[in-house]
Amino acid sequence: MPALSQRITTLNGDGSDGWDVFYRARAMIAAGVPVTELTIGEHDIGTDPSILRAMYDSARGGHTGYAIVPGVSALRDAVAARIEAQSGVPTSRENVLITPGGQAGLFAAHMAVCSPGDVGLIVDPYYATYPGVVRSAGAVPRVVATRSSQGFLPEGAALEQASEGAASLLINTPNNPTGAVYPRHTLQDIADVVTVRDMWLISDEVYDSQVWEGAHLSPRALPHMAERTLVIGSMSKSHAMTGSRIGWIVGPEEVITCLVDLATNTTYGVPGYIQDAALFALRAGAELELQVAEPFQRRRAIAERVLAKQDLVRMIPAQGAMYVMLDVRATGLSGEGFANALLDAHHIAVMPGESFGTSAAGHVRVAMTLEDSQFEAALHRLCSFAAGLAQAA
Amino acid sequence: MPALSQRITTLNGDGSDGWDVFYRARAMIAAGVPVTELTIGEHDIGTDPSILRAMYDSARGGHTGYAIVPGVSALRDAVAARIEAQSGVPTSRENVLITPGGQAGLFAAHMAVCSPGDVGLIVDPYYATYPGVVRSAGAVPRVVATRSSQGFLPEGAALEQASEGAASLLINTPNNPTGAVYPRHTLQDIADVVTVRDMWLISDEVYDSQVWEGAHLSPRALPHMAERTLVIGSMSKSHAMTGSRIGWIVGPEEVITCLVDLATNTTYGVPGYIQDAALFALRAGAELELQVAEPFQRRRAIAERVLAKQDLVRMIPAQGAMYVMLDVRATGLSGEGFANALLDAHHIAVMPGESFGTSAAGHVRVAMTLEDSQFEAALHRLCSFAAGLAQAA
Repeated sequence: MPALSQRITTLNGDGSDGWDVFYRARAMIAAGVPVTELTIGEHDIGTDPSILRAMYDSARGGHTGYAIVPGVSALRDAVAARIEAQSGVPTSRENVLITPGGQAGLFAAHMAVCSPGDVGLIVDPYYATYPGVVRSAGAVPRVVATRSSQGFLPEGAALEQASEGAASLLINTPNNPTGAVYPRHTLQDIADVVTVRDMWLISDEVYDSQVWEGAHLSPRALPHMAERTLVIGSMSKSHAMTGSRIGWIVGPEEVITCLVDLATNTTYGVPGYIQDAALFALRAGAELELQVAEPFQRRRAIAERVLAKQDLVRMIPAQGAMYVMLDVRATGLSGEGFANALLDAHHIAVMPGESFGTSAAGHVRVAMTLEDSQFEAALHRLCSFAAGLAQAA
Repeated sequence: MPALSQRITTLNGDGSDGWDVFYRARAMIAAGVPVTELTIGEHDIGTDPSILRAMYDSARGGHTGYAIVPGVSALRDAVAARIEAQSGVPTSRENVLITPGGQAGLFAAHMAVCSPGDVGLIVDPYYATYPGVVRSAGAVPRVVATRSSQGFLPEGAALEQASEGAASLLINTPNNPTGAVYPRHTLQDIADVVTVRDMWLISDEVYDSQVWEGAHLSPRALPHMAERTLVIGSMSKSHAMTGSRIGWIVGPEEVITCLVDLATNTTYGVPGYIQDAALFALRAGAELELQVAEPFQRRRAIAERVLAKQDLVRMIPAQGAMYVMLDVRATGLSGEGFANALLDAHHIAVMPGESFGTSAAGHVRVAMTLEDSQFEAALHRLCSFAAGLAQAA
């Protein structure tokens, strides 16, 4: 076999990725062991039948040939209108590329702004694919550390220090895995740094419909930021369309033009009937999105209630998204040690904080993707288990 | 606006791409001018309703969440069985990655085997995106010239000369735009060169179900070639599923493992309900594929009949795919000049050979994607028009 590219053989960095618990849980499930699965950001509902019907109607109506690469015009218009309504920034079709999912948007954005060897900044803790997406574009990931005590928000000094010589900064608000929703002052710190360094900001906003306190604010809305910000959006989380792989990039028209060229060579567009389904879903309005988001808000309240009954496990305040991050350091275990022990003792699967970098070591991330009463029971067991560990220590 | 990556601003090479006729035809159609459209490889039928029904049933049945990144196991098995039956090479699930279309497969394959700055060979004339897909992976496209008189088949000497220092060779059989089906001796010449040079062979076989003479032969079936060949396949052409964006890469297990990592970061998989639809379509067997392919075989016979009535325009023997390549050099015009003049005089749109490199200059490519009688009438007009040009010259 001839040699492979250096890029593809080093996508996973140094190897240990903290996903052992996840794979152990999968193996237990495959072996028939009942596992309470709280690892993954997947809704416990499917896509709404009305959206699937719209997709089928479009396909049967003949939209099964190549769709134009930038995306169906009506969908680009709808995304532009959504983003403009949200941010107040004038946005038109020419600012929008439809992508086969948010992950493809993250990758294409990095391909557009990072040359091989460039540094792409990410904020630790980060979503699992972030280092890999930077590496896939031939760039080098560098992390901005954050602190649990500061709600895992990036701080000005850390940003300034990490950003020297970087080409891009990738942020995510509302945040996976922490549940943080970046406040205006954090976004302004970010804007200041990327402006001084003349960097691109890639803003992953796929959880924009899941905000439990305050409101979602896009950094693209800050003064002069539209010219250096690429917003990544998706129908996955807002409309429970994870499997449909449809999202978008919003940015300056010149960048979108280049990204269309890239898409011509790398994806050749997104199925037209899925785009029509997404258009139907966006036109269905806010009610459908609220309906999809509501269970997570409800379960967040459950988590706050359960966690308030003890003070060993600390819940990082979660203003958005579908996760809560729990500080288990008082047990004396690492996040990975705790998650493994919990899986063994109670067959409850949560993600170690170490899966998301080093800043969330000693934490675990709990996905709120389980029916309320089971979710509550699992949290109770988790807290009792932590208390037992602490006593034994 | 900060700088963009060098990669994304140079995807189109030196600019002139010979697609002016195509865009002029599109503009005429948009302005209400009736244009006989023979430019694009899109079937004149949609996806079979039974396939769309299978997709809808899967989606309504709940397959709307994330599908596993390598692809649904049953579909990987079906693709492996298809490839093994076709080639005789043992092929299993672990040799298959499901991709969001053949184009995504071409891109991922180049990402896997070309490092930035590496040379990726392509055969001229080439499908429109080939130079761009090599550039998208950060590599440098280099062409292997072919000759009209040799049916545009790559020849050993040209291959040997062009391949020095190259990392990969991309071939396409059955070929777009030429209709050539590479015979065994051509494939053996290719195998010899890539073996001596220790290069990867990327074999685009998306037209494998459209062979009008002889049989499709995959270079992966030649001795020792499975270890250095990545086969790109797709449901687009074989099952009229162009818009569904589903295809695959077949190759050594080690490469597929790396490609799954890449897909995790760049696409995060393919919609599960589309994979289920593809599985249904593959299980429907050869009859459906023959039904999709048959109109092109019929129209090829029409083209041979019409072209035989004159000897000014020469038809390059087409053994496969959905196009015929016509040599119009006897008119004294370039392919581009001829295509533009034909569009002006008769509102018939064909692709200039120059759109596909330099080897097919003085030719035009005619897509056989129009109802038989209209297709025949258009070819008659094309031949009369060529005769008139030659007389006037």
